[in-house]
Amino acid sequence: MPLSPRQTHLLDLIEQPADLRALSRGSLAALADEMRHALLEQVEATGGHLAANLGVVELTLALHRVFDTPHDRLVWDVGHQTYLHKMLTGRRGWMSRLRQHGGPAGFTRRVESEYDPFGAGHSSTSISAALGMALAAERKGEDRQAIAIIGDGAMTAGQAFEALNHAGDRQANLLVILNDNEMSISANVGALNQHLTRLRSNPLIERFRHSGEEMLAQAGPLGELLGSTRAGLRDGMRHLLGASSLFEELGFRYFGPIDGHDLDTLLDTLSNLREQRGPRLLHVVTQKGRGLAPAERDPVGFHGVARNGVSRAMAPSADKPATPAGPPTWTEVAATRLEHHAAKDERVVAITPAMIEGSGLKGFADRFPERLYDVGIAEQHAVTLAGGLATEGMRPVVAIYSTFLQRAWDQVIHDIALQNLPVTFLVDRAGLVGPDGPTHAGSFDLALATSVPNLAIAAPADARDLDAAIDWALAHDGPCLVRYPRDKCPAELGGHALAEGITAPTLLRRSAAKAPRRVLVIGVGAMVERLIPICETLDATLVNLRWARPLAIEPLAELAAEHDAVVTVEEGARIGGVGSELLLALAERGVSRPGLRLGIEDRFIEHGSREECLADTGLDSGSIAASIAAFIGNLCMNR
Amino acid sequence: MPLSPRQTHLLDLIEQPADLRALSRGSLAALADEMRHALLEQVEATGGHLAANLGVVELTLALHRVFDTPHDRLVWDVGHQTYLHKMLTGRRGWMSRLRQHGGPAGFTRRVESEYDPFGAGHSSTSISAALGMALAAERKGEDRQAIAIIGDGAMTAGQAFEALNHAGDRQANLLVILNDNEMSISANVGALNQHLTRLRSNPLIERFRHSGEEMLAQAGPLGELLGSTRAGLRDGMRHLLGASSLFEELGFRYFGPIDGHDLDTLLDTLSNLREQRGPRLLHVVTQKGRGLAPAERDPVGFHGVARNGVSRAMAPSADKPATPAGPPTWTEVAATRLEHHAAKDERVVAITPAMIEGSGLKGFADRFPERLYDVGIAEQHAVTLAGGLATEGMRPVVAIYSTFLQRAWDQVIHDIALQNLPVTFLVDRAGLVGPDGPTHAGSFDLALATSVPNLAIAAPADARDLDAAIDWALAHDGPCLVRYPRDKCPAELGGHALAEGITAPTLLRRSAAKAPRRVLVIGVGAMVERLIPICETLDATLVNLRWARPLAIEPLAELAAEHDAVVTVEEGARIGGVGSELLLALAERGVSRPGLRLGIEDRFIEHGSREECLADTGLDSGSIAASIAAFIGNLCMNR
Repeated sequence: MPLSPRQTHLLDLIEQPADLRALSRGSLAALADEMRHALLEQVEATGGHLAANLGVVELTLALHRVFDTPHDRLVWDVGHQTYLHKMLTGRRGWMSRLRQHGGPAGFTRRVESEYDPFGAGHSSTSISAALGMALAAERKGEDRQAIAIIGDGAMTAGQAFEALNHAGDRQANLLVILNDNEMSISANVGALNQHLTRLRSNPLIERFRHSGEEMLAQAGPLGELLGSTRAGLRDGMRHLLGASSLFEELGFRYFGPIDGHDLDTLLDTLSNLREQRGPRLLHVVTQKGRGLAPAERDPVGFHGVARNGVSRAMAPSADKPATPAGPPTWTEVAATRLEHHAAKDERVVAITPAMIEGSGLKGFADRFPERLYDVGIAEQHAVTLAGGLATEGMRPVVAIYSTFLQRAWDQVIHDIALQNLPVTFLVDRAGLVGPDGPTHAGSFDLALATSVPNLAIAAPADARDLDAAIDWALAHDGPCLVRYPRDKCPAELGGHALAEGITAPTLLRRSAAKAPRRVLVIGVGAMVERLIPICETLDATLVNLRWARPLAIEPLAELAAEHDAVVTVEEGARIGGVGSELLLALAERGVSRPGLRLGIEDRFIEHGSREECLADTGLDSGSIAASIAAFIGNLCMNR
Repeated sequence: MPLSPRQTHLLDLIEQPADLRALSRGSLAALADEMRHALLEQVEATGGHLAANLGVVELTLALHRVFDTPHDRLVWDVGHQTYLHKMLTGRRGWMSRLRQHGGPAGFTRRVESEYDPFGAGHSSTSISAALGMALAAERKGEDRQAIAIIGDGAMTAGQAFEALNHAGDRQANLLVILNDNEMSISANVGALNQHLTRLRSNPLIERFRHSGEEMLAQAGPLGELLGSTRAGLRDGMRHLLGASSLFEELGFRYFGPIDGHDLDTLLDTLSNLREQRGPRLLHVVTQKGRGLAPAERDPVGFHGVARNGVSRAMAPSADKPATPAGPPTWTEVAATRLEHHAAKDERVVAITPAMIEGSGLKGFADRFPERLYDVGIAEQHAVTLAGGLATEGMRPVVAIYSTFLQRAWDQVIHDIALQNLPVTFLVDRAGLVGPDGPTHAGSFDLALATSVPNLAIAAPADARDLDAAIDWALAHDGPCLVRYPRDKCPAELGGHALAEGITAPTLLRRSAAKAPRRVLVIGVGAMVERLIPICETLDATLVNLRWARPLAIEPLAELAAEHDAVVTVEEGARIGGVGSELLLALAERGVSRPGLRLGIEDRFIEHGSREECLADTGLDSGSIAASIAAFIGNLCMNR
């Protein structure tokens, strides 16, 4: 069922938000409808975060209508719900290349537009950033509004609380819009969520919803979603009957909850709030996936959507193609092994910061619900909680993305490594992640971890390595990181161990070259697979390092001594990474050889496909081969 | 006025908390008095955190009396208020060597005692850790209490909120004792504090205080502090009249506030809470410095006290020796330069996470109060707030300790470096800090920062460098870290620049040695000063690197090419540090020389004096000289 194209008479008039402000108020509901259609068509073409954007059509429109952007600052938390914001701020044509190399990012970015005053990607930074803007305006004597738009899921992260606490105390001129869609990526958790549930149970919002649903039923999923007038419920602050002791105790005036799909209410309320100053929090209830029935029913499934995902989802089930078979992902292999251990060992518990689906824990959650702790978006707590569990003899496994582990790096050092507690970190999305770009890249975990005492680091190259690493980590009496990328996982690459012990590197091929061309290539993690054909072609020796810490330096030094040069290849920051330490450790063992360190270059890598990102930093197969060939060429010249 | 020794009849009976439980209740007030005296005598002898410990005499006694430690778990947040806890748990004799090499730590440590179920040092981890213990007990079917004791200052950090949010939602069996002493190290800030103030204004607690003060006046500062009975105010939960909407909204039952110096109330209340299950928060109001008049008046001054600091403080003002003159500390030099810029440039603002005094910002606070943002213990927010201020053209300076910057490492990467925002980080206490030990060591800032794109890193070696670094950072259109240790700052070490530009290294001496002994020593930051006599003795060339990023690799490669070997010396993690990158970058420029990297070894360094800590990891002058001499010896042998 392909999407039928729609006319966009009104939307075509909007080059900038100023154009939006020139429209008659009566036409805004129709504009919202056009925006929702344009969004669906765009995500159908490009893929992207669908459900979150469907939930903020009216809110985005109302914010740009009421506030004087870009003079007033809109700071969108996380930023993946800003497709409509981008559409209204001069980037509509460009959106056909969303998240593609050279196209707009899937998040806000300062370099893209003056309407993006702060970039995002990780959650829960918006209140801090907007507060900084508010305090700057105060210092400079400028009259502007600073507005943070933050989801209820993001509100569970400690930084949001830190920022509310400071803003309330300062009585800063800050408006926080709490976009309460009753869930983050996974179902929301935490006592805060229960608080919001109580607030939402205000009878008035229930009445809003009821009438909204009636209208929706009459108008169809993409029709006129809510009436543009609703007698008796329109005059400004009259709607704002709620009261939140929690936010009020933190020094905010609390308004709401209001229906985030009722355009009139939004416009009236925001207009009223625009005239006020000081810390204000407006609680807006929205629905993820709003207007697209399958997305309303399954917002997690529609969190991120592939190209043509909209029409596929709208198709009757019988028409849906089966998920293509193929090798499992690293995520799936790790999750399967984790379940294997959990089935045998009652001490194994899993912790996730709101990423059950992304970290592959759905199966674990089904089989061992009482041993899965979803702490919400709260990485710091997740890590120290694991520490507490470990002190009592449990075997906690923190399943986390590399980029989000950065949020808890002090806890990794101070609570886990310093106390040498047996906590296993399954570090997913290590390396370049593709369309999500630099905010989500797992570029730094190796560089961060190599300098931390007591921490073991596994960088498996295939499913066999990954299973072995998890086995070892769960038996080890200390902390261990197991890092792997967002990709398919090869089953087994072969090779034989260079030494005794489970953490030994494996030798995949041995060069028959003669001096000065005897090159030893040491691959780290998922890079090994693509090094196999390269080393065949160049007749280089290839080693799968398998463990970045402890380094099996003795057998590596022996092997390196038989070679004329050493190349290291890792999908992680080149500076301070495993390759650096490896080359220096070899030299300190007396095996000083010309070295080539390949890794992610010393700059942030833009979004694109994963292969484009790798190519951008010289880690695609062609670039690696060319770099090694040039290095070998230099060896011969310098001889 | 030396402290007069006191008899400790009761305290002498206490080897373990079980002995405490065998005493008659009537004797406990006298025991508290003895404990307070013993504490004063001990801190007089060893130095240490005084005010915080004076505040928890009764609370510590009551907790060990009522709960079945170590079966019940006491998790002390931060851990610097545990001198009395250590005194009661078998470590009393050992306390005479507190914070000294080989003596007990100034914080809790798992390796010290089974009564320390979780180590601390950084704040705000206790609720997470205790919740982990509570969930483990739930899994294992064990009936025990997990108790987190956390200060009101530590409660402002986001992690505490994350943990409360999770515990309330889980309805975990957890008791949180909020030790509300109305301040963290600096005066407390934030809306949460205002909430606590409202709770404290409960008339009953005021009445407690009033009568407590009367008694105190009668009994003298070290006398019988509070009566052991108080008719009509003793029978259990009757005192618990308060109600906290904030904690209750997070799913906790709230009790209090109660007077934390009223032993009877404490015992009754804790006994009652011991019989309950589920998430409970007891609000205890204590007074830092309690029982020592000067410390009650100036708890910040008595936060950390030197040896003989108690008697000096008790002496009449005329007797007090003037602060010894001497070179200023790095902290002082940096603060002075910051004020210099603030006086000239309205855009300069300072941000501190509750460390005005420690970061030397008292002068800034006096001169530019409206441009100082003390955000409380909230490092993550501090960094992103600076980002928001920077986007508006301000020049924010985040004054922070190296060890606490770890708490905000994701924000440094994601909010500051990725957006290349002009934020200056004054990173104090970089390197080994001495008596505070491994939790507070600034061992990782260089290793963390070298791999982050866009981030400049200055490691000044003298006051001239430090001034120049701050000048450069505030003029630079991107982020910059300026790192320096907890020490005196030499004024000027001399030398001449190796190249044009303010970030160029300086040459301090040139070796006259002949091959193969021509050694180039590159010192990083404060290590340079102690390298001068070493390099004289060994006739080595000495360079002051000054900037760790960007590396001035061209002039260094030229210089290195004239030498036979290169030595790098830094006070930071040896693995992944500046020396590693320097040696590899030289090799990549074709100047491959035998290299020696000196830095903090790959293990956590125990507490002691700063020099003892440096010696422990081979960074004292003697060890450095010996290491370089041995390295030179090897060069000659291998030739």
